[in-house]
Amino acid sequence: MKKLINDPADVVAETLAGFAAAHADLVAVHTGPDYVTRAGGAVTGKVGLVSGGGSGHEPLHAGFVGVGMLDAAVPGAVFTSPTPDQIAPAFQAADGGAGVLAIVKNYTGDVLNFETAVELAEADGVTVRTVVVNDDVAVEDSLYTAGRRGVAGTVAVEKIAGAAAERGDDLAAVEAVAQRVIANVRTMGVALTACTVPHAGKPSFDLPDDEIEIGIGIHGEPGRHRIPLAGADAITEMLLTPVVEDLALTSGEEVLLLVNGMGGTPASELYIVYRRARALLEERGVRVTRSLVGNYVTSLEMQGASVTVLRLDAELTALWDAPVHTTALRW
Amino acid sequence: MKKLINDPADVVAETLAGFAAAHADLVAVHTGPDYVTRAGGAVTGKVGLVSGGGSGHEPLHAGFVGVGMLDAAVPGAVFTSPTPDQIAPAFQAADGGAGVLAIVKNYTGDVLNFETAVELAEADGVTVRTVVVNDDVAVEDSLYTAGRRGVAGTVAVEKIAGAAAERGDDLAAVEAVAQRVIANVRTMGVALTACTVPHAGKPSFDLPDDEIEIGIGIHGEPGRHRIPLAGADAITEMLLTPVVEDLALTSGEEVLLLVNGMGGTPASELYIVYRRARALLEERGVRVTRSLVGNYVTSLEMQGASVTVLRLDAELTALWDAPVHTTALRW
Repeated sequence: MKKLINDPADVVAETLAGFAAAHADLVAVHTGPDYVTRAGGAVTGKVGLVSGGGSGHEPLHAGFVGVGMLDAAVPGAVFTSPTPDQIAPAFQAADGGAGVLAIVKNYTGDVLNFETAVELAEADGVTVRTVVVNDDVAVEDSLYTAGRRGVAGTVAVEKIAGAAAERGDDLAAVEAVAQRVIANVRTMGVALTACTVPHAGKPSFDLPDDEIEIGIGIHGEPGRHRIPLAGADAITEMLLTPVVEDLALTSGEEVLLLVNGMGGTPASELYIVYRRARALLEERGVRVTRSLVGNYVTSLEMQGASVTVLRLDAELTALWDAPVHTTALRW
Repeated sequence: MKKLINDPADVVAETLAGFAAAHADLVAVHTGPDYVTRAGGAVTGKVGLVSGGGSGHEPLHAGFVGVGMLDAAVPGAVFTSPTPDQIAPAFQAADGGAGVLAIVKNYTGDVLNFETAVELAEADGVTVRTVVVNDDVAVEDSLYTAGRRGVAGTVAVEKIAGAAAERGDDLAAVEAVAQRVIANVRTMGVALTACTVPHAGKPSFDLPDDEIEIGIGIHGEPGRHRIPLAGADAITEMLLTPVVEDLALTSGEEVLLLVNGMGGTPASELYIVYRRARALLEERGVRVTRSLVGNYVTSLEMQGASVTVLRLDAELTALWDAPVHTTALRW
């Protein structure tokens, strides 16, 4: 295992320490229990947005804390759900009196721990509503999931719900727009290489030098099938086609296209995939009106990428375009 | 070789095609010869900034084209200098009538090809001044270099000179501020793994599983020495100490600290390095007043990082803080 780390047990704490020091203008990092809030804390009268999950997917979620997106993020150990006694205080810290929306990726541990945290927070007088992101079309049920997994589409849910909260929507309205994104966003990914969880010390799975895994999960969970290494255009089509079909996209529709890197993939390769995914959408008469290319929901140092498509309408487009000021997304 | 590419010969062209499609609001990509300009072209009356070099270091340089930074970028083949007949038209395209500053990383091929391009452009009536970035303290002379190499400090030169041009400084003044950054910025890097140039098809060098290369160049050129894999804190000290000593930093000074990923390193590891580098600077009484952490000057999928320190004063700080709107740097 070759990593720029010290003791594997300290990876999350030391990452948070660096993150806090580098971005003190934007975020505040609380330790024991660990969670990240906006530097100024909760915004009075605004719906608070909280997300979280296992570490190792950076910049998700702490990189999306800031104006126009999350109010708090709760990082668990690497690839491990945060605990209810971490999440509940984050709900408290994000509550500006208008209630809190929890954005949870669909993994069994995350869903359970967020549910327990909601009970704890509501006992303390915080109103919390929850949405569950399940955009991965690769498989139903998986190593850590009942139903579909939540993957890179989470970025779109957090951005758009964050914009709705920022413009003053109430909790029911923010929840509704988050659900509308979830209903219209789909993703599928590919792994070229495995990744290594620091405290495990060896790759999460074996992938031969001449094979790739189509439909990979962001923890290295198995996808649909392994195939011999292929060209980027062929791989992109294998990722995009099920996404488009699941969304039942038709000619004339407008979409956001997100090509997400898994952590170890050069930007050049992401643009090559983007180029082909866009061309395939255009061949179907689908218009790509918004784009995002980069590392947003990663799997440590895994080489690979995912393709996400979000069906847009005028309101979702406007909320996507609304100002955002976080460490990982800013406009 | 596992990459999300098609024919290795098409990597740069297909990357540029994706880049152009994803960012048509910000950049325009010209092909045959290949160069990237701001979407609106040259700004009348403003000094034009042009940089370039081999591809494979993305987002450098095309990712820094936009308001407050570069007017044009010229990508060569992977790890190969762009040609004079690519660079000269980019000078023309960037010239708003106030002359052009060329920012060149110190590699023999880049320096020669930019010199020839300057002659071509000046024959056509474009005034060009050139600065050469040589921030890498690891080695004097190297595989492709006479003198020190230009590496991640290039980002600071492009950002700060770009801000000076944007506020209306004339060519001599923009050149002077670029030289002041060059005189005050130093970098040193480490490789945990090698990288593979697409058309070569195999790693540029061999690095055993239990060794790392201290002082690596951004093309995988040899650095100072190989050592057994060590902890992040120990490695960070090996990178930071020569940087601080070369700058002769003293207690009370203010600096920008940039921790740059080589392409295949997770963000978490960069923050772990940042945390230790900052603590080491603070132990010396040096104040870190500005920070940047992420992948800015990469080496394809190499795992590793570099530490860059720029000595700041009030003017350089203000120019760093000035608005920038590019695909890779935005505030």
